[in-house]
Amino acid sequence: MESLNRIELALVEAVVAAEARGAPPKLAAALRHAVFPGGARIRPLLCVAVAQACGDDDPALSDGAAAAIELLHCASLVHDDLPCFDDAATRRGKASVHRAFGERIAVLAGDALIVLAFQTLGHAAARSPQRLAPLLATVAAGVGMPLGIVAGQAWECEPRVALRDYQRAKTGALFAAATAAGALASGVEAAPWRAFGDCLGEAYQVADDIRDVAADPVQLGKPIGQDVALGRPSVATEQGLGGAILHFDRLVARAAAAIPECRGAFRLRALVRMESERLVPQAMSNDLAVARIAA
Amino acid sequence: MESLNRIELALVEAVVAAEARGAPPKLAAALRHAVFPGGARIRPLLCVAVAQACGDDDPALSDGAAAAIELLHCASLVHDDLPCFDDAATRRGKASVHRAFGERIAVLAGDALIVLAFQTLGHAAARSPQRLAPLLATVAAGVGMPLGIVAGQAWECEPRVALRDYQRAKTGALFAAATAAGALASGVEAAPWRAFGDCLGEAYQVADDIRDVAADPVQLGKPIGQDVALGRPSVATEQGLGGAILHFDRLVARAAAAIPECRGAFRLRALVRMESERLVPQAMSNDLAVARIAA
Repeated sequence: MESLNRIELALVEAVVAAEARGAPPKLAAALRHAVFPGGARIRPLLCVAVAQACGDDDPALSDGAAAAIELLHCASLVHDDLPCFDDAATRRGKASVHRAFGERIAVLAGDALIVLAFQTLGHAAARSPQRLAPLLATVAAGVGMPLGIVAGQAWECEPRVALRDYQRAKTGALFAAATAAGALASGVEAAPWRAFGDCLGEAYQVADDIRDVAADPVQLGKPIGQDVALGRPSVATEQGLGGAILHFDRLVARAAAAIPECRGAFRLRALVRMESERLVPQAMSNDLAVARIAA
Repeated sequence: MESLNRIELALVEAVVAAEARGAPPKLAAALRHAVFPGGARIRPLLCVAVAQACGDDDPALSDGAAAAIELLHCASLVHDDLPCFDDAATRRGKASVHRAFGERIAVLAGDALIVLAFQTLGHAAARSPQRLAPLLATVAAGVGMPLGIVAGQAWECEPRVALRDYQRAKTGALFAAATAAGALASGVEAAPWRAFGDCLGEAYQVADDIRDVAADPVQLGKPIGQDVALGRPSVATEQGLGGAILHFDRLVARAAAAIPECRGAFRLRALVRMESERLVPQAMSNDLAVARIAA
């Protein structure tokens, strides 16, 4: 898939720049470990897909924006896996960064990845410098305070939070940033693209909740049952597996409907359907229906 | 002092934006705790001083750059104080962020401050968007890989490192970024201003090493003796207190000599002398000389 190649190339370029002469070897190795091999790269793929739907007149910039968003996602995984949070031993089927390199390097790797994301974005804006400020603001808002993924993670430290606000910040914010950034990188207004990313992000978080209850941990590449174990808000624990799957289907439909009319809308809708099937296979809903009838 | 007011105002604006509606309360409080009240604000003062020496034709941008640099410095303090690094109980005379808010919020506060720094920079570039990309690259290089302060901190996890490389990354890099950013924010070429920041940063790190051996911990606002306790490379332990003070004096002289000729050079040199006296009082050198004669 061509888009995936573009994204991997942009990520390799970014990480190679970070590993340049004079870099401390362990931290350099930890960055590579955190970024490669990747997961589904769903956020950067979404960014590039929206850019393409919007004409993609500066592919270097949309690639840079996509890579920046993925680097920020990787940073959040490294820090979320730390002993003080999930204390996850594995991630993407191999040792988490703190298990492989120690806690200190894991803290620094997350920090370095955040900085690298903004470096990558700035570097990519060489041809369209006037697009940098809005892109920077959009990407940063998806990660930072008051409503980005860092804020979402911080809600886990509060005694109570509305599930929807938590999930919008924890996952939706970076998805919304990905779609908005794809539009901005192509010189198109971001606002109409936000709702699409927002719905998709929420759907993705619900899928994550579902898989935390119902997936095979080996296939998933990380342990399951973490939401209950860590007392985290979850749609699957709040509404049950059946309710969660229903909620997921509704969010996916809402996301597809939120795609603005454009030349690439048909292709994008197909991408959403494919991705939703990958996240929560139809077979899972069917199994659940069968289990219900049997009960 | 007018420059300090400008900087505090820019920092307040940045932190208030981060605390906006929807922000998780503990993380919001932790950001404020990490940024206010500040230390000497030496890096942002340096940035603004260089901007003024270069004409300061866009004060909003130089303020934004200065605030960004201070936010990144605050982020590094929060993460350096974590249990896995220094496990510092106090900072700037009060509880460190992880002691006041817990380790999870401290990790997230550092992350949020890094993001906020780049947000602040992007926001400040509204009047001079063409200056944003070089400023972003300069500020990010001072913090990230391969040679910024995160790299400097990572050298503490390596079995060996040249003391000078360690200190240049750990402290010099953000000072060099501060002087270079001051120039760039005023539309002036950054290169001639780098050496000045570099020398000053190295001097500052040596002063830190000296104070870790010789200062009053109450006055310093943090515990002393940490370099030896944590096995960190230090000029004071490598060359002795006398050698370290001599080295400091040489670096300050070199920094003053590195100031490019400009309208504000005289004022800047005075600032360097004042700051060096604050860092390592002449009385300390005199005491040492007396102690030597007595020995």
